[in-house]
Parts: sequence; structure tokens; C-alpha cells
Amino acid sequence: MKVGARNKIEAEVTQIKKGDVMCAVKVKLSGTDIMMSSVMTTDSLDEMSIKVGDKVHVYAKAVNVLLGKD
Amino acid sequence: MKVGARNKIEAEVTQIKKGDVMCAVKVKLSGTDIMMSSVMTTDSLDEMSIKVGDKVHVYAKAVNVLLGKD
Amino acid sequence: MKVGARNKIEAEVTQIKKGDVMCAVKVKLSGTDIMMSSVMTTDSLDEMSIKVGDKVHVYAKAVNVLLGKD
Amino acid sequence: MKVGARNKIEAEVTQIKKGDVMCAVKVKLSGTDIMMSSVMTTDSLDEMSIKVGDKVHVYAKAVNVLLGKD
Amino acid sequence: MKVGARNKIEAEVTQIKKGDVMCAVKVKLSGTDIMMSSVMTTDSLDEMSIKVGDKVHVYAKAVNVLLGKD
Amino acid sequence: MKVGARNKIEAEVTQIKKGDVMCAVKVKLSGTDIMMSSVMTTDSLDEMSIKVGDKVHVYAKAVNVLLGKD
Repeated sequence: MKVGARNKIEAEVTQIKKGDVMCAVKVKLSGTDIMMSSVMTTDSLDEMSIKVGDKVHVYAKAVNVLLGKD
Repeated sequence: MKVGARNKIEAEVTQIKKGDVMCAVKVKLSGTDIMMSSVMTTDSLDEMSIKVGDKVHVYAKAVNVLLGKD
Repeated sequence: MKVGARNKIEAEVTQIKKGDVMCAVKVKLSGTDIMMSSVMTTDSLDEMSIKVGDKVHVYAKAVNVLLGKD
Repeated sequence: MKVGARNKIEAEVTQIKKGDVMCAVKVKLSGTDIMMSSVMTTDSLDEMSIKVGDKVHVYAKAVNVLLGKD
Repeated sequence: MKVGARNKIEAEVTQIKKGDVMCAVKVKLSGTDIMMSSVMTTDSLDEMSIKVGDKVHVYAKAVNVLLGKD
Repeated sequence: MKVGARNKIEAEVTQIKKGDVMCAVKVKLSGTDIMMSSVMTTDSLDEMSIKVGDKVHVYAKAVNVLLGKD
């Protein structure tokens, strides 16, 4: 499936912090040491049955990516 | 300055596509071959005077990062 | 593929308005008369080669869905 | 009141899951079997006094709507 | 109507920059000198018939508000 | 540092509500009585060590700002 998000990166799940409604998932971008985080509902986490070690794709719409410059 | 976004990655600007109101900026994450895109207003681009070759930081709030799993 | 967005709806593309950097795509939710709109970069549109009549899935993260009440 | 979001759909609240800071609200789009979810702060939920059975409007900015294609 | 966004501020439209698909609207928060900007589709702008001088409400979901600290 | 968000406002932290995964931070815009809210992960809050009374900057991408008109 193709998804209309400019940013699609392969990653591996390294940590899951599960709360009552929301949870935070940490991933490491494949072939790098770069960590990223995703927050989703615990319902989504359960439905996808995401667990540590899983290979996933990271998606972010370009409009939600911000740039900063020193 | 610290910014309350979980995802902060060093990158270099590789391409700028400037439209009437919005523009798209492509960056390459430092030390990798991973490309990401950011869409912002042309006013923001001009104010930050972003140009190809600039070192920037990529920010994305974790709530706007989506995971996909095969 | 499973995607960690709570909202995933089948739809058909009914209209595409293409701008210089961004484009707007109208879709009709399958089996209903409900119209929705998506804005993406023209690069995304071209990469997915979306055209009128295409069957697509609409995704929206629950955190980006707002409720209003009279 | 008119709101500058391209996507405005009538719906009925079917389920509320309330957490410490955030809550998830499930709605069914009127005249359909399509379910959608919204995540908001519990403060917003309390202020709007949303409860199961309420008629609401679902809003999503077009920039936050993603399309996927098989 | 009540809207489930934590941030709702009265403002006045001071400038409109209309592009092919998207447009940028500048507003001044009422009783202050603080300027804010909103980007929407030109379709939304036309539907709401927003013009300079209009009194509007600014909405932003709390999840899309970022804090920075020196 | 310059950040590519059209909306950057000085504010002071007035309240913090900390949950298991997410937290809500209330701020008052400097020189006004306008309150705004930001939701972030508790990890971000801890990393920035934000506390009541802190001077912060509020950022919101223009694409995530919605206008409403009566």
C-alpha cells in the first residue's frame, strides 16, 4: 500500500510505555542511531499488536514536520 | 533552546520548492541517507532564510507520528 | 499493512485540485454521501498516481479529530 | 458558526474512555455504520459535557487527513 | 457551539494571502498586539467568506501546540 | 534559534497536570489574560524540566490553526 505521507522511514520498536488512554512508542530508524517517538491510543497499539523488536514504518505528513535553524 | 517535541533530528537542506503560499523543503538526516520533507508557509521560509546546504533541526511532535506494520 | 490511526475509512476520489506545491483531493466515503478532503504535496499525489475514480483509504489520527457540540 | 475545516460530519457519541489527562471518544457517522475516534483532553470533555448519545460534529483539517492506496 | 479545542481566542483578520490551493490568513488577537497565522484551503476561505476586518475565533488543539524554553 | 512555525508567542506556565504518558500544560500569554494549553509527553516535560512560573515560547504551525466565524 502507498500512503500519501512524504516521510516514510523503516524503524524498529525499542520501547513501549502504555498509559490508560494513550501510549508512547520509541523506535530506532533502521541503519542509524536515530530515535523517534510516536504517541497513539492504546486501542491502536493493541489492534496492531505492536511489541518491542517489531519492524515498523514511521509516517509523518510533511505539514506536521517543523524545521529549526540556529 | 529546548523544544517540547520528542523528535529532534539534525539534517541538511537538499531541495526547496517554493510555491505561492506554501513551500516544500527536503532535508537529509545527518549521517544517513534518509530524506524527510517539511511543508511550511513561504513567509516562514523567507523569515528563516533557509537555503540549500543549511544545517537544520527537524522537529515532529510524537502525536503527529504514525506507525505502520506489515 | 496495519496503520496506527484510529480512523480508516474506504472512499473514492471524486475531484483533484492541483496547485504548485500542494493539492486538494476530494473523496466520497464508500456507501455514503459524505465528502471528505485531504491536502497533500503534489509530490505525494504524483508518487501515488492518484486519479479521479480511485479507491483509497482515508486515515486521520484521532488526536487530529475535533468534536463540536451545539 | 462556520469553521474553516473542510471536513465536518454529523455523528453520535457511542463510547467514552476517560483517562487521567486525555480521553478517547468514539462516534458513529450519522446515517452510516462508519465509526471514528477523537482524542481530546479530559478538560475539553468536561467543559463540553459530552456523553454517550450526544449529537456532535466531527471536524478534521484537510491537511491532517492522509490517503492510502493499495 | 462548543468545540473540543482547548485553545479558543477572539481575533480580527488583518491580512489574507490567497494561493491556488492554500491560503494564509493573519489575525490579531483581540485586545493585544499578538499576531497569529492560519493556513487553510482556498475552498474553506471562500465558503466562510473571510475578509480583512472580520471577527473570528482562533482554535488550536492542545496536542498541536508546542512549548520551547531557553 | 529560529523555528519555522508562524505562531510564536511568549507565555508563562501557570499549571501542569501530569498523567501517566501525557501531560497538559497551561500558559498565560505575556501581557494578556489569554490562556492557552499544550499537551505533550511526560518525557518531554521532564526533559525540559518545565515548572509553574517558567517563561516559555508557544509554537503552533499555521496549518494546525483553525478559524471559526459566527
